[in-house]
Amino acid sequence: MYTLGKKSWLVLGGHMPRLSTGFEPAFTSSDQLAILNTSPEDAELALTIYFTKGEPVGPFEFRVKARRIRKVRFNDLIDPQALPLAQDYACHIQSSQLVVVQFSRLNSGQRELALLGTMAFPADRQER
Amino acid sequence: MYTLGKKSWLVLGGHMPRLSTGFEPAFTSSDQLAILNTSPEDAELALTIYFTKGEPVGPFEFRVKARRIRKVRFNDLIDPQALPLAQDYACHIQSSQLVVVQFSRLNSGQRELALLGTMAFPADRQER
Amino acid sequence: MYTLGKKSWLVLGGHMPRLSTGFEPAFTSSDQLAILNTSPEDAELALTIYFTKGEPVGPFEFRVKARRIRKVRFNDLIDPQALPLAQDYACHIQSSQLVVVQFSRLNSGQRELALLGTMAFPADRQER
Amino acid sequence: MYTLGKKSWLVLGGHMPRLSTGFEPAFTSSDQLAILNTSPEDAELALTIYFTKGEPVGPFEFRVKARRIRKVRFNDLIDPQALPLAQDYACHIQSSQLVVVQFSRLNSGQRELALLGTMAFPADRQER
Repeated sequence: MYTLGKKSWLVLGGHMPRLSTGFEPAFTSSDQLAILNTSPEDAELALTIYFTKGEPVGPFEFRVKARRIRKVRFNDLIDPQALPLAQDYACHIQSSQLVVVQFSRLNSGQRELALLGTMAFPADRQER
Repeated sequence: MYTLGKKSWLVLGGHMPRLSTGFEPAFTSSDQLAILNTSPEDAELALTIYFTKGEPVGPFEFRVKARRIRKVRFNDLIDPQALPLAQDYACHIQSSQLVVVQFSRLNSGQRELALLGTMAFPADRQER
Repeated sequence: MYTLGKKSWLVLGGHMPRLSTGFEPAFTSSDQLAILNTSPEDAELALTIYFTKGEPVGPFEFRVKARRIRKVRFNDLIDPQALPLAQDYACHIQSSQLVVVQFSRLNSGQRELALLGTMAFPADRQER
Repeated sequence: MYTLGKKSWLVLGGHMPRLSTGFEPAFTSSDQLAILNTSPEDAELALTIYFTKGEPVGPFEFRVKARRIRKVRFNDLIDPQALPLAQDYACHIQSSQLVVVQFSRLNSGQRELALLGTMAFPADRQER
C-alpha cells in the first residue's frame, strides 16, 4: 500500500480583487486550491490564512475524500469568518493524509486571465 | 551511464473546457503532458486519472522512446475510456524509466491563453 | 513549536520594462516578491541583485514581521541604490528566519498580463 | 565561501512557433533560458536538445561569467546546428559550476503572451 504527497503545504500570492468581469461563474475573479488525495482514506484538512496586517485566521476545515480531488474557492471560506476582499494573503494547508496541492488564480479585473496554477510549496514541519 | 528524472509524477488542475475558439488545431482547448526520456531505453508509462466524483480510471498506457520527448493530449486518451469534458481531474504518471513530466493547458474559451506549462510534482512512492 | 520554509532563495527572470499601460497603481509594470514568515519572530531579510553586466549590488535590507506576509516591489528598492529600468536581473534572498518566497511580474507593456507568480528556488547554502 | 544551485537542469515544453506578431525585438516569438551564476568562477555550460523524432543534438556550449546572469535565446543557437522551427523540444543543461536555470517563452502567435518563466527541473545525476 502506497500513498503520494505531503501533509503540509504553503501557498503565496493570494489576492482577491474587488473587480470582476466576464461571464459568471466560469470567469469570475477567484483564488482556488486543487487538492489531490490518492490515499485510500479521507483526508481532514485545516487552512490557516496569513495577512500583511493582523493575526492569522483559522482553522478553516474541510475533507477531501479518498481517491478524489477537490477544488476549494477562497471566496467560499466563511467559517470561522469570511476572507476580506482586496487583501494580500498566504495560506498554510495541513492534512491528515498525504496530499498534493495546487493554487490557481483567475483575475478577470483587466480581462486577461492567468489560467495555469502554481504548485504549492511542500513544507515539511521542522523543529526549531 | 546516467539517467535523469523520476518514475512517479502527479499533475493537478486538469480541466477540459467544453468551449473552444481560434484556429484548429494549434489553438484548440487542450490539456497535455510533455514527457522527456533521456535514458537509453524506452519508457512504458501508465496514467491514472482522478476526479472530484467517482472512482479513478485507468491505466492509460503508452510508450516514450529512448532519448526522445513525447506530447500526449488528454483529449486523445480513449483506452480504456474517453475522458469526460468540463470536468476537473488530476493525473498520476508512473514510468518504467526515469522521466521528467510537464503539464500545460491551452484554454481558448475566453480568447486568452496560458501558454507556459507547470512542472509536475515528483512523487516518490512511500510506504505508509 | 514549528516553523516553515528556507533561509535562502533565488529568483530569476527579473526585468523591469520601461513602458507601462493600464490604470495606476494596480496595473503598472512591476516585479515583486511575496514573503511569508510563519515563525513567531520577525525575519531580517537581505537581497543581493545580480545583472548581466557589472558587479552585484546590495544588500537591500528589510523586515518581515512574525506571522505576517509582506510584498516588496523591486521598483521601491532605493537603498543602497535604485535598480536600473529595462535590465535583466536575478535576486538572492537571505533571511534570519525560515520564510517562503514567491516572485511575480506584471508586464503591461503589451496590455496582456501574467498574474500568477512563480515559486522562488529554495537554495540551501553549501560549502564548496 | 559558498555557492548556490545545481550543475544539471532539465527544461520541457520547448516549442518555437513559425508565426510571430508584435514589435521586434521585444515581442518576437522566442524560448529562452535565464542562468544565474552566483559563484566566484565562470561557468562552462553545455546544452543537449531532445526532440520527438530523431537523435538528440549538441552540445551547444557557452559561458556564464562569475557573479552574473545570462539570457540565451534558443533562436540564437547555431553551433553545431540551428534548431528547427515549429518543433517540440526539451533541453538538458550541464554546468561546470552550481547555477540556477529558468525557462521562459513568449508566444506572440495569437497576440497573447505568457511572460512568466517556469523554473527548470534540478536534475541530479544518478547512476543507474
